Amino acid sequence: MNFLNEITSRFPDAVSFAPGRPYEGLFDTEEIFGHVRRYLDQLTADGASADTVRTAMYQYGPTAGIIRELIAESLRVDEGVDVPPESIVVTVGAQEGMLLTLRALFAGPRDVLLVASPCYVGITGAARLLDLRIRTVEERDAGIDPTDLEAAVRAEKAAGRRPRAFYLVPDHANPSGSTISRQARADLLEVAARHDLLIIEDSPYRVVSPGTQQPTLKSLDRGRRVVHIGSYSKSVFPSARIGFVVADQQVLDASGAHSLLADELAKIKSMVTVNTPALSQAAVAGALLAADGRLSDVNSAAAEHYGEALRVTLEQLERHFPEDLRRTAGISWNEPRGGFFLSVEVPFVADNAALLRSAQGHGVIWTPMSYFHPDGGGERAMRLSFSYLSHKEIEEGIARLADFVREETARPAGPPSVPGGTA
Amino acid sequence: MNFLNEITSRFPDAVSFAPGRPYEGLFDTEEIFGHVRRYLDQLTADGASADTVRTAMYQYGPTAGIIRELIAESLRVDEGVDVPPESIVVTVGAQEGMLLTLRALFAGPRDVLLVASPCYVGITGAARLLDLRIRTVEERDAGIDPTDLEAAVRAEKAAGRRPRAFYLVPDHANPSGSTISRQARADLLEVAARHDLLIIEDSPYRVVSPGTQQPTLKSLDRGRRVVHIGSYSKSVFPSARIGFVVADQQVLDASGAHSLLADELAKIKSMVTVNTPALSQAAVAGALLAADGRLSDVNSAAAEHYGEALRVTLEQLERHFPEDLRRTAGISWNEPRGGFFLSVEVPFVADNAALLRSAQGHGVIWTPMSYFHPDGGGERAMRLSFSYLSHKEIEEGIARLADFVREETARPAGPPSVPGGTA
Repeated sequence: MNFLNEITSRFPDAVSFAPGRPYEGLFDTEEIFGHVRRYLDQLTADGASADTVRTAMYQYGPTAGIIRELIAESLRVDEGVDVPPESIVVTVGAQEGMLLTLRALFAGPRDVLLVASPCYVGITGAARLLDLRIRTVEERDAGIDPTDLEAAVRAEKAAGRRPRAFYLVPDHANPSGSTISRQARADLLEVAARHDLLIIEDSPYRVVSPGTQQPTLKSLDRGRRVVHIGSYSKSVFPSARIGFVVADQQVLDASGAHSLLADELAKIKSMVTVNTPALSQAAVAGALLAADGRLSDVNSAAAEHYGEALRVTLEQLERHFPEDLRRTAGISWNEPRGGFFLSVEVPFVADNAALLRSAQGHGVIWTPMSYFHPDGGGERAMRLSFSYLSHKEIEEGIARLADFVREETARPAGPPSVPGGTA
Repeated sequence: MNFLNEITSRFPDAVSFAPGRPYEGLFDTEEIFGHVRRYLDQLTADGASADTVRTAMYQYGPTAGIIRELIAESLRVDEGVDVPPESIVVTVGAQEGMLLTLRALFAGPRDVLLVASPCYVGITGAARLLDLRIRTVEERDAGIDPTDLEAAVRAEKAAGRRPRAFYLVPDHANPSGSTISRQARADLLEVAARHDLLIIEDSPYRVVSPGTQQPTLKSLDRGRRVVHIGSYSKSVFPSARIGFVVADQQVLDASGAHSLLADELAKIKSMVTVNTPALSQAAVAGALLAADGRLSDVNSAAAEHYGEALRVTLEQLERHFPEDLRRTAGISWNEPRGGFFLSVEVPFVADNAALLRSAQGHGVIWTPMSYFHPDGGGERAMRLSFSYLSHKEIEEGIARLADFVREETARPAGPPSVPGGTA
């Protein structure tokens, strides 16, 4: 992503479809103070003394977090996920949750992490940090196909390795935008059960997406096959850096005693961040309290906003790429029902060199889809993020993108690639 | 530490000399709101628009942090450390700083981390998380002796390995309480230069210790040999979880370009916590602004408090262990000039079994020093932390400890050890 960051800072006036950031118009600075205050008031109302409140806000805290009960309650009312608070570990964003989960689950060089291709870079980055082996499962138009996953599992087993877990974003995936069906969810759980595989579910966009969502894999999980990673970066605010892991699996710890996977994650967390900042936990707790745990309710305006941004993006794509042009030139895109991203297939190599021409010549930035394919792929595709932009910016940006794509499509051949980030 | 946690929760009425926590009487809950507000007001006074302030507080932020200038300024006025803000990475506590530093510096199985024995468990934990090789250097009464370090370096090199860095807490060390001399600091830097070794300096207690402190190794560092890890857990408050790393070393990145080690740390951080929570950074920034960067000034009351707690602890030890008893029984302790800890040598094995007898029979808890020796050692020593306790608790606790030590000293032989934590 370094090249992308460089391009973004070199061309500040470009419309950027790159960052997967929430729309800032939904935020109000003063609200943060209100959230924290609400949490402290609730502690007091629940009988905490002033000293206890002070300890909670100032002192080293429990490694697994101080707002696990509120998170468990929110999962119950919002997602139909019924887990004890003890199975939850509060983390510094979903990213720390990924790192802890991988470190806890992967024990040796035979262990393999399966990921979709394209795949979110946070999980592949965490795996690289821990020097883990990865195998990709190619995503189809309808998202991950469970039979593809099973084939990958069998191939890894045949090679003498142990497929340990499969990571996926089942809803409005980053980067592709795809959502897997209800049936695919059930089938994935069966594959996991059949092959003693865990599923690491990461679903940060569902609460801020319009309409009814598919059930989480965790809510369908009867065999404790799913480790569910949560994030409040989209549903509360990103800089709180509050995520969590639901890890209700029974494991044997180093001393041979039974414990929850969550306890193992907490032990590892004590060597990563010790505990999650109390102020951030308080801010998220205040937001949860204000919503009675129903983040989906409190995010209905956000979901509507992102749904509209998606609608405008698709509308502008339709407008600037008429159907005959699409067909003759070989341009297409998917039509997600929510999330922050969609993917556009183009008839040329959409690499760093093309990105530079796009930013420099047309004032529009996007993310090469190849960044998200650990084993190659996605060379002729781009990820467009519409979450951060106003409708006006989307309209202007898609118009510029259309100019760029038409120019590229008319080029006889591409120049050599610019070296740069492929993360 | 699991056994210790278990003991602490089983015997809530015991006086505990175990936790290395700040004294809570120094905190005021409302002050956190004031700190955050002061930082936001400063942003506005510096010309930031309301939207810019909102972005800083809500949105994904720069991986290396938003308060690097304030930290650089504070290091300049407080510690005589003059480094550019770009060489600083803000971290989720010093712990994340350790993990990032180790991950960046250690490249292969030949690389060795040198640590003192006894040693802070945070660094050995981070090393274990990354499966790094460790070699210990036995601490003497006056702290680490540079000739011991050099001997260890030579031995590792002779074994075909690469001693990459030496981690130490030069001031009022955790766990021993020792402080190394001005001369030893200079000598350590020479050993580092001679053997192409980096020194990882971690010094969280100096600002909250009474009297004049020795210069930091970083302030004496002319060859960029020192990676300095900072923490605001003791000087501002623990649950902010704000630390930082000063990493002004020039390195070659993956593409062969020159960059700062800090840039490499930031890249790794993007796979660990993405960025440090803005609220926590704002709270610490507000505290720094209130003190004009002079944390030592603003902590003078805290330093006096901890100095008094140390004085009372030593006084009570003198009182309850008269000199003749000490001599005949073989009991001794060191006399640190600051920090949170001191160490007591006893004539019996101070292990988990002894700890259980101490908590159960005498209502006093301490930390077996053996927990801090990665390769064994410290079997007949205990760490006493006095930072968290009132004078009354210290008096009561040392009286109980004396009863326990007298009883143990009179025991004919110890029972077999209870299995448990040795972290």
